[in-house]
Amino acid sequence: MKLGAIEAGGTKFVCAVSDENINVEDRAQFPTTTPAETMAQVFAYFEQHPVDAIGIGSFGPVSLNQDADNYGFITNTPKLAWKNYDFLGAMKAHFDIPYYFTTDVNVAAYGEYQAGAGRGKKNILYWTVGTGVGAGYIQNGEFLQGYSHPEMGHILLRHDPRDLGFEGVCPYHGDCFEGLAAGPSIEKRFGKKGNELDPSNEFWEIEANYIAQACVNATLILRPDIIIFGGGVMKQSQLFPQIQTEFVKQMADYVDFPEISNYIVHVELGDDAGITGALMLAKKATE
Amino acid sequence: MKLGAIEAGGTKFVCAVSDENINVEDRAQFPTTTPAETMAQVFAYFEQHPVDAIGIGSFGPVSLNQDADNYGFITNTPKLAWKNYDFLGAMKAHFDIPYYFTTDVNVAAYGEYQAGAGRGKKNILYWTVGTGVGAGYIQNGEFLQGYSHPEMGHILLRHDPRDLGFEGVCPYHGDCFEGLAAGPSIEKRFGKKGNELDPSNEFWEIEANYIAQACVNATLILRPDIIIFGGGVMKQSQLFPQIQTEFVKQMADYVDFPEISNYIVHVELGDDAGITGALMLAKKATE
Ligand SMILES: Nc1ncnc2c1ncn2[C@@H]1O[C@H](COP(=O)(O)OP(=O)(O)O)[C@@H](O)[C@H]1O
Ligand SMILES: Nc1ncnc2c1ncn2[C@@H]1O[C@H](COP(=O)(O)OP(=O)(O)O)[C@@H](O)[C@H]1O
Ligand SMILES: [Zn+2]
Ligand SMILES: [Zn+2]
Repeated sequence: MKLGAIEAGGTKFVCAVSDENINVEDRAQFPTTTPAETMAQVFAYFEQHPVDAIGIGSFGPVSLNQDADNYGFITNTPKLAWKNYDFLGAMKAHFDIPYYFTTDVNVAAYGEYQAGAGRGKKNILYWTVGTGVGAGYIQNGEFLQGYSHPEMGHILLRHDPRDLGFEGVCPYHGDCFEGLAAGPSIEKRFGKKGNELDPSNEFWEIEANYIAQACVNATLILRPDIIIFGGGVMKQSQLFPQIQTEFVKQMADYVDFPEISNYIVHVELGDDAGITGALMLAKKATE
Repeated sequence: MKLGAIEAGGTKFVCAVSDENINVEDRAQFPTTTPAETMAQVFAYFEQHPVDAIGIGSFGPVSLNQDADNYGFITNTPKLAWKNYDFLGAMKAHFDIPYYFTTDVNVAAYGEYQAGAGRGKKNILYWTVGTGVGAGYIQNGEFLQGYSHPEMGHILLRHDPRDLGFEGVCPYHGDCFEGLAAGPSIEKRFGKKGNELDPSNEFWEIEANYIAQACVNATLILRPDIIIFGGGVMKQSQLFPQIQTEFVKQMADYVDFPEISNYIVHVELGDDAGITGALMLAKKATE
């Protein structure tokens, strides 16, 4: 059996093929331009590399409601060429095989759950803090998903007292979590990217405060067994002890949580999490 | 078949018996004093009213981890006589029948899910705002539950600008949601109870802001189909339009949610939600 994966991100698409043990045999990537251009490359890729099922993780928002007419669509994205694009329908029209369709964040969460930092845990919360902030939650192997998929990146946080003058960069909310803490907020504050800031800069304590608040609220709402962070900004490894310290302080001994150094952790699979998860979900779709 | 229910609250225990169609046939209540006194009354009650299964909703925190040694215990509650009390074990030692054991908030959530405002919805979020703030989430009939049960009452919110001087009354966090918005916070601010404040008092807009923020964060994290509010404070019916307006404003057209007047709503079963839910969960325990 051959398995296929599509990690459809806002800047690039990655396609991959593996055997049934998730050993990746081939991989390719294409820039995300228009559906006509980008999808033609996807179709050509899977014509050259036939597979028995495909797992898709797409940038969003996407419709995951199987009862809705627009199930499998990318919905009201700011990338206008993709707005209301029937992603899953287009795939099915080309290849009549089983699919697993979910968000880009969810496939990465699934990869970490099965083969990364979440191995052996029942319930995991996965965040990515990069160009945006996104999250996926898995409880006993199932994605948390109600009216639609989570959009935890936009939760409201308290301004850090050292950061009161900063209005945030979210086009919708200004100073939501993403508006205060994703990569572009750092560029807006300093006129340079996060990787150009010194790791000893006091700003990282402000960043850690925001991330810790998000962990506090998500912990109290979801009670995960582990919180796993990926994304470009989280490459700043000094953030982890700062977030852990701040989280413990904010929780104020109210409820218990796993030992902190095993609770708020970095991804293990890195950039492979999405493809790994998508391949595993392709396999799940054949079962 | 006869079904039993125990709604174990911090101030009183309610016990009830129904037929298999959840028609309540008898009900009694006892003050929550010590396990020795209160539980003796519970045992006597179910000796007089034999049942085939019991659903229990207990004040908490409780241990719901079936793999843990303390499964079914009330754990580190401030009510010291009940701390580390083996509630489920004591019941099983007296009556060797099936049990469903969960939190007091979860049984009320289940009642509203099956027979109240959540009827017909797949995923519901239930909040109670009374002496404390608690919440339960049900996805496709299953309670959300990870490392332990949710403790959403203590999420961190932004101070309303009109309420900056108020430090909150949560003994752990000060100004968490419960510390800012539960009944005792109103008493602390005004020296009188919420039901003695005029419904036109500006304070209710501040209260609505806090509740709306909690709805925003819970919406983005959970994506429920409906958010149902019960508890003493929510008897202020003017709060609902205020919360709805504030919620729409804070969401800022970022993601879609159900039509607002059917999204943030009042409980339908009122004080019967807990007993109804516990009886239904007793029935589930026999299946
Ligand atoms: N080492 C780093 N330290 C801090 N910020 C970084 C680092 N590397 C990348 N970033 C920031 O992370 C963002 C990119 O995130 P990434 O997760 O790589 O991609 P995306 O979110 O677009 O998939 C950019 O805003 C970039 O400035
Ligand atoms: N009509 C009302 N308006 C505002 N607050 C009220 C009202 N009725 C009760 N409360 C407050 O709600 C709290 C009691 O909540 P309730 O849900 O009845 O009980 P509990 O949370 O203890 O189970 C008290 O703080 C009380 O002052
Ligand atoms: Zn936002
Ligand atoms: Zn608190």
